[in-house]
Amino acid sequence: MAAYLLHIPTSFTPTTTTATATATSPFRTLLSYKPSYIHSHKPFTPLCSRRPDYIPNHISDRNYVRIFDTTLRDGEQSPGATMTTKEKLDIARQLAKLGVDIIEAGFPASSEADLEAVKLIAQEVGNVAGEDGHVPVICGLARCNKNDIDRAWEAVKYAKFPRVHTFIATSEIHMKYKLKMSKEQVVEKARSMVAYARSLGCDDVEFSPEDAGRSEREFLYEILGEVIKAGATTLNIPDTVGYNWPREFGHLIADIKSNTPGIENVIISTHCQNDLGLSTANTLEGAYNGARQLEVTINGIGERAGNASLEEVVMTLKCKGELLGGLYTGINTRHIVMASKMVEEYSGLQVQPHKAIVGANAFAHESGIHQDGMLKNKSTYEIMSPEDIGLFRSNESGLTLGKLSGRHALKSKLLELGYDIDGRELNDLFWRFKSVAEMKKVITDDDLIALVSDEVFQPKVVWKFGDVQVTCGTLGLSTATIKLTDIDGTEHIACSTGTGPVDAAYKAVDLIVKARVKLLEYSMSAVTSGIDAIASTRVLIAAENDHTTTHASGEKIARTYSGTGASMDIVISSVRAYVGAINKMLGLKKQSN
Amino acid sequence: MAAYLLHIPTSFTPTTTTATATATSPFRTLLSYKPSYIHSHKPFTPLCSRRPDYIPNHISDRNYVRIFDTTLRDGEQSPGATMTTKEKLDIARQLAKLGVDIIEAGFPASSEADLEAVKLIAQEVGNVAGEDGHVPVICGLARCNKNDIDRAWEAVKYAKFPRVHTFIATSEIHMKYKLKMSKEQVVEKARSMVAYARSLGCDDVEFSPEDAGRSEREFLYEILGEVIKAGATTLNIPDTVGYNWPREFGHLIADIKSNTPGIENVIISTHCQNDLGLSTANTLEGAYNGARQLEVTINGIGERAGNASLEEVVMTLKCKGELLGGLYTGINTRHIVMASKMVEEYSGLQVQPHKAIVGANAFAHESGIHQDGMLKNKSTYEIMSPEDIGLFRSNESGLTLGKLSGRHALKSKLLELGYDIDGRELNDLFWRFKSVAEMKKVITDDDLIALVSDEVFQPKVVWKFGDVQVTCGTLGLSTATIKLTDIDGTEHIACSTGTGPVDAAYKAVDLIVKARVKLLEYSMSAVTSGIDAIASTRVLIAAENDHTTTHASGEKIARTYSGTGASMDIVISSVRAYVGAINKMLGLKKQSN
Repeated sequence: MAAYLLHIPTSFTPTTTTATATATSPFRTLLSYKPSYIHSHKPFTPLCSRRPDYIPNHISDRNYVRIFDTTLRDGEQSPGATMTTKEKLDIARQLAKLGVDIIEAGFPASSEADLEAVKLIAQEVGNVAGEDGHVPVICGLARCNKNDIDRAWEAVKYAKFPRVHTFIATSEIHMKYKLKMSKEQVVEKARSMVAYARSLGCDDVEFSPEDAGRSEREFLYEILGEVIKAGATTLNIPDTVGYNWPREFGHLIADIKSNTPGIENVIISTHCQNDLGLSTANTLEGAYNGARQLEVTINGIGERAGNASLEEVVMTLKCKGELLGGLYTGINTRHIVMASKMVEEYSGLQVQPHKAIVGANAFAHESGIHQDGMLKNKSTYEIMSPEDIGLFRSNESGLTLGKLSGRHALKSKLLELGYDIDGRELNDLFWRFKSVAEMKKVITDDDLIALVSDEVFQPKVVWKFGDVQVTCGTLGLSTATIKLTDIDGTEHIACSTGTGPVDAAYKAVDLIVKARVKLLEYSMSAVTSGIDAIASTRVLIAAENDHTTTHASGEKIARTYSGTGASMDIVISSVRAYVGAINKMLGLKKQSN
Repeated sequence: MAAYLLHIPTSFTPTTTTATATATSPFRTLLSYKPSYIHSHKPFTPLCSRRPDYIPNHISDRNYVRIFDTTLRDGEQSPGATMTTKEKLDIARQLAKLGVDIIEAGFPASSEADLEAVKLIAQEVGNVAGEDGHVPVICGLARCNKNDIDRAWEAVKYAKFPRVHTFIATSEIHMKYKLKMSKEQVVEKARSMVAYARSLGCDDVEFSPEDAGRSEREFLYEILGEVIKAGATTLNIPDTVGYNWPREFGHLIADIKSNTPGIENVIISTHCQNDLGLSTANTLEGAYNGARQLEVTINGIGERAGNASLEEVVMTLKCKGELLGGLYTGINTRHIVMASKMVEEYSGLQVQPHKAIVGANAFAHESGIHQDGMLKNKSTYEIMSPEDIGLFRSNESGLTLGKLSGRHALKSKLLELGYDIDGRELNDLFWRFKSVAEMKKVITDDDLIALVSDEVFQPKVVWKFGDVQVTCGTLGLSTATIKLTDIDGTEHIACSTGTGPVDAAYKAVDLIVKARVKLLEYSMSAVTSGIDAIASTRVLIAAENDHTTTHASGEKIARTYSGTGASMDIVISSVRAYVGAINKMLGLKKQSN
């Protein structure tokens, strides 16, 4: 064992390196951390102060549970969730703020753009210490082959704590139909590739037997024992098809813990898919039975029904950690809401109103609904306070914005909402704010968040939206005129008819942009109540016959791009969203060439 | 015990009573039931054929688990989910088709409209046998007071199997702050009210100790023992605040089973809220520890983070029932998708793309995504087949509709999608279909579903949408002209300006309708991909200073109304949705007067 530890600092001093950020993150750093109380139930413990120093294969406190976030890898590979490098970097920074122990930043072998994004995150986020001196591990995924591992290492090696995560399927059905390999071949592949990763100088190697939930037990013990000997430091046990129920998954972890040779020298991890809606419970049972790393995603996004969600796992451990034997994490839960909104925005995967913890109705007792009986004692119906996850409501703050509010008031309000915006971005936002304030008496928090999303969470501009004019209705042909400005400042105007105003406007945009675009999804919501609300439009597009990426399962999948736009006029917000998505597509295309 | 059984038929002959439906249900009855196979994992067992005869306090097969659906009660009381009587009846019929054992149809004391809806469901759904001879129990909720119980009994007594469900809080925090009653008072209230319900002639009485998850164990055993003596037949154990984790909730059920005097003569039930994302796992642990009734909702809707979802609980029992000791339900899972869509439509609560079982991405391997590797063997990544839950894809059926398709082709296609539509509704739909087909080459399944939702899932017409014409854009003031027809056939025209085309159009509608309406939510999605898609708009409105209902927690809450509309023109679909919501509001207003 000692050999593995040689390359690892046994303790570290919080580094003060400042990242040379390519873009200012719009999210503020909480300067001081104030513990709160979960009403009368349970005192809140500021757990992050107790976080043990990072050693790949060992945790000094047996009750500490590492949180491994794979929003940027497993989450990003779900339909429509393609993100730009800037978006990934923003999210990685937010994950670091949350205090995530390990950030799986991507799958570098899948595309050049993915490799670059992981590398940038390793450089920019993987070397910066947070408030408590914590620097997150940056991890890259690799299949069990030299090329994948080379590329993963190439991307993560710039981080203070780099990790390579390699995997191979071990269930009979996967070995037979997907890999077409014998058991012996699979063991040899796993063993040799873990050793190869170590040989590159990577001291932190995670290994996953894919579809472990359906793999033969004895074979699992064997292959896991072999990769431990080869130098793996974390063994991740995925329920790849979400087929386990909690007792079953708990037994699997307990069995692996009892029967795998050398297991006492490594960390056991869980990775639970949500196909039966059991991922959070499975993950917790895994921890209860000895796993000390939990793989999760923000909002539970991911393929099919997604993964265990960070917020559910972390808040359950926070509320019920005692019952799980005193388990705790290093997550600063106050950054959950902002992380959730950011991932919703960038991935295009919106959470349902009744999503646990982060859904719009999750704390509905707090918002709007008449509640005389309940005010008597909040904890009659609430098990945690909205503030614990960073949810603040406008009616609780005194600050209301209107058309006379200045730049300073806007900046203060944004800070209160969790956005730290300055310079040109603040300026652009201020003018948008003023134009809305001209038309609406009161600007709500939701209005502001929509404007931030429209102004700040945008890809680099290739085409800039100018003007649109539309005529439509049951009585005539829908006609739209569009003006866009290209990167050189030249104005382009086109008009088109269509089956409706958006169809007409998008066709006019197509005439100007001349990219072969396919609209896959279109949705809109008024983020504020009232008939003069700001509407947020979200679109998902794909390039026709273009842009594929390699999925972790080995298949090629078509890349899709989301765009958002906000305006009080739904036609304008629709055009903004479409132009945004096209910019994202053209930007990424450029990057991959 | 025998006394309870006296009033109950120990077996029943499938009745052939035909309901005198007030509206034709658009959902087809599956005439024959064909078992399928979950790929290679596990043969599908047509469980419904084994459903034991209904006896309130006893199940002849110890492995049979009753499914109690509370979509119409707990689900409907979530923000924005108010449904009309017709909508509730449609859903109740679909629940009966699903083979739900007990339908909680509402909370009759909360409003006159709710009482009427429960009564209608008792009459229309509670007397009709399904394919397997099964007639669902119809249940009404009541707080522990005579008025509530009288009204619940008044509503459900028309059913073949009527049930009254009464509840009172038993946790210290609830008794102290909400009820302001001593333990002794709470026990006496519960005992006497259960006895009162029995005295009315109701042989099937369910009792719930609210917030059981946080109640003192000994006190629970005591109060439950008392209500059993008073004649309760089902004891429901709610984790009201979603505060338990699976092991804890399982222990609670096991403890109650071991320590409550007389428990062997009644059925134990679970009711798990989802605040920590653990409701499905908690429910299953409850079953594993002896509960034989599980309270769930379609799509997991309900207050805050909702309830355990029917589809997750049922599909887990179907896939993993063996591991839970051979447990099974009587649910015909092929009706799940239709039930999910219907509830999404009527409640306005949309499920997230990564929702387990029924989310748009849950079977994403099946749809659109390139998948060469995976086609080798479907079960490498799938644990159930989409067909098991009634999901069929257009590309699997040969029938494609275009502008030359006739009425017969349309009807066949609708039947294939699960809609049984005839008469005037088919006629209206056909003309809408033709007008869309004029503009689009291929009409997809999603197009059709959007049109069905717009034409069939609509409240009674008070105001009929005529025409709209709009001009808008960045270059001028948005202006809309609207024509509506009132119930007497008189045309009304108004125009208005606004901050955008929808704002302008809605203001023009307001000028005609003259109802005081507040727009709470507005959302839209293109249900089909492609730039000329049909867009579905959904709005949620409330009457200003009007319409309250009593919540189960005793508080008064404001009623809200949802409306949907579909069109290829987003302004038209927006106006349709708004007029639909207004019709729903005016219709319910009339009913409550």
